[in-house]
Amino acid sequence: MKIGILGGGQLGRMLIQEALKYDDQFHMLDPNEDCSCAHISVFTKGDFNKKQDVLDFGKDKDVVSIEIEHVNVEALEELEKQGVKVIPNSNIIKIIQQKILQKQFYDEYQIPSPEFQIILSKEEEIVIGFPFVQKLNTGGYDGKGVQIIKDENDFNNLWDEPSVLENLVDIDKELSLIIAKNERGEIKSFPVTEMVADPKLNLLDFNICPTQISDDVQNQIDVIAEKFMKAADSEGLFAIELFLDKNGKVWVNETAPRLHNSGHQSQEGNANSQFEQFYRVLKNLPLADTSAFGFSGMLNLVGEENFSGKVKYEGLENVLKLPNAYVHLYGKTETKPGRKMGHINVLADSREELLEQLINIKSLVKVVAE
Amino acid sequence: MKIGILGGGQLGRMLIQEALKYDDQFHMLDPNEDCSCAHISVFTKGDFNKKQDVLDFGKDKDVVSIEIEHVNVEALEELEKQGVKVIPNSNIIKIIQQKILQKQFYDEYQIPSPEFQIILSKEEEIVIGFPFVQKLNTGGYDGKGVQIIKDENDFNNLWDEPSVLENLVDIDKELSLIIAKNERGEIKSFPVTEMVADPKLNLLDFNICPTQISDDVQNQIDVIAEKFMKAADSEGLFAIELFLDKNGKVWVNETAPRLHNSGHQSQEGNANSQFEQFYRVLKNLPLADTSAFGFSGMLNLVGEENFSGKVKYEGLENVLKLPNAYVHLYGKTETKPGRKMGHINVLADSREELLEQLINIKSLVKVVAE
Repeated sequence: MKIGILGGGQLGRMLIQEALKYDDQFHMLDPNEDCSCAHISVFTKGDFNKKQDVLDFGKDKDVVSIEIEHVNVEALEELEKQGVKVIPNSNIIKIIQQKILQKQFYDEYQIPSPEFQIILSKEEEIVIGFPFVQKLNTGGYDGKGVQIIKDENDFNNLWDEPSVLENLVDIDKELSLIIAKNERGEIKSFPVTEMVADPKLNLLDFNICPTQISDDVQNQIDVIAEKFMKAADSEGLFAIELFLDKNGKVWVNETAPRLHNSGHQSQEGNANSQFEQFYRVLKNLPLADTSAFGFSGMLNLVGEENFSGKVKYEGLENVLKLPNAYVHLYGKTETKPGRKMGHINVLADSREELLEQLINIKSLVKVVAE
Repeated sequence: MKIGILGGGQLGRMLIQEALKYDDQFHMLDPNEDCSCAHISVFTKGDFNKKQDVLDFGKDKDVVSIEIEHVNVEALEELEKQGVKVIPNSNIIKIIQQKILQKQFYDEYQIPSPEFQIILSKEEEIVIGFPFVQKLNTGGYDGKGVQIIKDENDFNNLWDEPSVLENLVDIDKELSLIIAKNERGEIKSFPVTEMVADPKLNLLDFNICPTQISDDVQNQIDVIAEKFMKAADSEGLFAIELFLDKNGKVWVNETAPRLHNSGHQSQEGNANSQFEQFYRVLKNLPLADTSAFGFSGMLNLVGEENFSGKVKYEGLENVLKLPNAYVHLYGKTETKPGRKMGHINVLADSREELLEQLINIKSLVKVVAE
C-alpha cells in the first residue's frame, strides 16, 4: 500500500521504523531534503502548507495522513472529494489547528476545558480574570505562541493577534491519553501517562506510565475520551492532553490529531507502541494491544542553550551501558537551543525507581554542538 | 557513520530497522534492486561475490560487514589491508563459509563437533559409519547442500563434490547461542534458545527462549562459546548452532558469522535484540543487556509449496488480533515454495502457553500467491 504522510520529522521516522515490520511503501512530503525521513522513504520535497504541493503529493496515494497538524487543509478537503482516504479527516485537523475553533469545539460538545475568552485583536475588552494564558489562534507549537499574562502590568505584552485567553488551571498533574480509532470502528486507548514539563523551554520533559490516579479521575478521562472521539467523528490516532486540577477535576488542555511526544515511552513500555497503533489505523487493521509492561518513562533529548551546529551527544555511552534505557535519536544533523533531537525511554519495576533513573539519565547526557 | 553491509535481505532490513533509533547511514550491496533493503538504505546494485564489486563498495565505508556469509573474502582481505574495518574479520568468514575449513577449525581448537570425514570427490573411500550427513563444502544454505546417507543403497546419491561427511548425532534438542564481541573486547551472549526444525523444508520452524537445560549442559555451552570466541579472534555477532545429544553431551553443528534466524525472537522477547547488539558491535559501543522477558518464541513465515508469484498472507488479520503476537514481514513481493517471507514472534508466561500459541498461529497463517 502507498501511504503518504505530510511532514517528514521524527514522528514520521518512528512510524516508518515500526512499519518496517510490514510491506508498505511510505511517501513523505517535507520542505527539508535532510529531514528525519528523507533517506528512509520515497521522499518528495515540497511544502505541506501549499495547496498545490499537497494535492500533487496526495492524488495517487491509497491513504494520506499527517505527522504535523499545520498543513494545508483545503488540499485535504479536495483530496477527500477526489476519493483519497485522508486520516484523520480534514475537518478535525482544521478544528484542531486553530485554537479558537478547538475551544469552540470543546464547548459545543461539553468537553470540559478551561474557561476562555476569544479575542481577535488586543483592542478588545478583556473580561477574563487574571492570571490567564494567551494562545495564538495559529502558529503555536512546542510552547511557542503561548504566554502567561499575570496582571494588568503584563497587558503591554499581549500579542495583537486572534487568540484564545484561557483561565490558568491550578494544576495537580498534567496527563495525556493516546487514543486510536480505525475505519471499522474499533477504538482503543493507551494507559494514561503523566507529564512533567520543563518550565523554561515549555517542552515535554519526563513522561511516565502509568500515572497514579483515582478511579474517579480515570472515569472522568474515559468520559472525555468517549465524547471527544464521538465529536471528532474520524479515524486516526489522537493525543488528548489533560490537566488534573487540585480539586480532582480533569480538563482538556489541547488535542493533537497525530502521534505525540507523550506516547514515545510506548515503544518499549507497552505491548505495542503508538506508532504500531497508528500504522494499523492507516491500514484499517485490528487495533493492537496497548497494555503497559510495568513502569516506563521518557525524557526528551533537547538541544542545550548556547549550542548551534553539528550535533554531538555528550555522555550517551554512559546511557547505553544502563540495562533498562533505550536511546532514540531522530537522524537530525544540526542542533539548536530547544530543538528536539531524540529521547530516551526507561523501564522500571516501580515509580520511584523510574524517576530515579530518569533523573540520573538526564544528568548524564547533554545535546551540544561539535 | 557510514556502515556498509554486503547483502540486502531480511537480516539487513531488521538491522536497519533497529538502527533507525540512531543517526548512522546504512549502505547495502545486493544484486537484487528489489531486495528487502533497497528502499530503506543507500543502495548499491552489485554482486557481493565479485571481488571488484565488493572493493568498490567497501573502500569509502567506516565499517564493512555482512548479512550473508557467501561473499568474496579476497576483497574483504584487501579492504582490511587498505585500513577499512571489516566485521567480522575476513579470516573467520573464510573459515565458516567453507564447511571443510569450519570442521578443521573446530578440530584444531578442541570445540566438540560430530565426528567427520572430508572427501574431495565420491571416488574416495568412505570410512565413516552409516548413517551420515553429507554437507557440501560450499554453496549450502538454508538446508540446501545437505543430505543424509542412510546406508550403502544410498551411495548412488552421494554428491561428487568436496564435502564433509559427518556422523549423525542422536539429537535430544537443537539449541542456538547468539554471542557478540565488540572491539573493546566486551563479550555478551543471549540466553540459549531451542529450535524445532520442520523435517520437510529443513528450515528453522519454531525457536523458543529460554530452553530448559541442566546446569551441566549450560556449562558445556559456556565452554564452547568461550573457546569459539577465542579461536575466532574477531569482533562480530555469531550464532553457534548446537546439538544436545541423548547422553547429555553438547556438539557444535555449525556457526554463522552474522545475524541469525534463531535470534529473531529477541526483537520482543529480550531487553535488546540481536539487531541492536550487532549495531553496537559495528559501532564499538557498550554491548546491550540481553535478558529475556519471560518466554518468547518465533515461527517462520515460509512460502507454501505450489505457490509462486505475488505474495499474499492468508489469515494474517487473525494473528494481528492476538495480544502477544508480533508480525514481521521482510518486504519481499514474490513468494516461492520454502522462501522465508517473514516471521511471527510470540510472548508468553510459560513454555506450555508459548507452544500452544505458536501451534495455534501456525494454523492461522498461510503464505500463498495472489
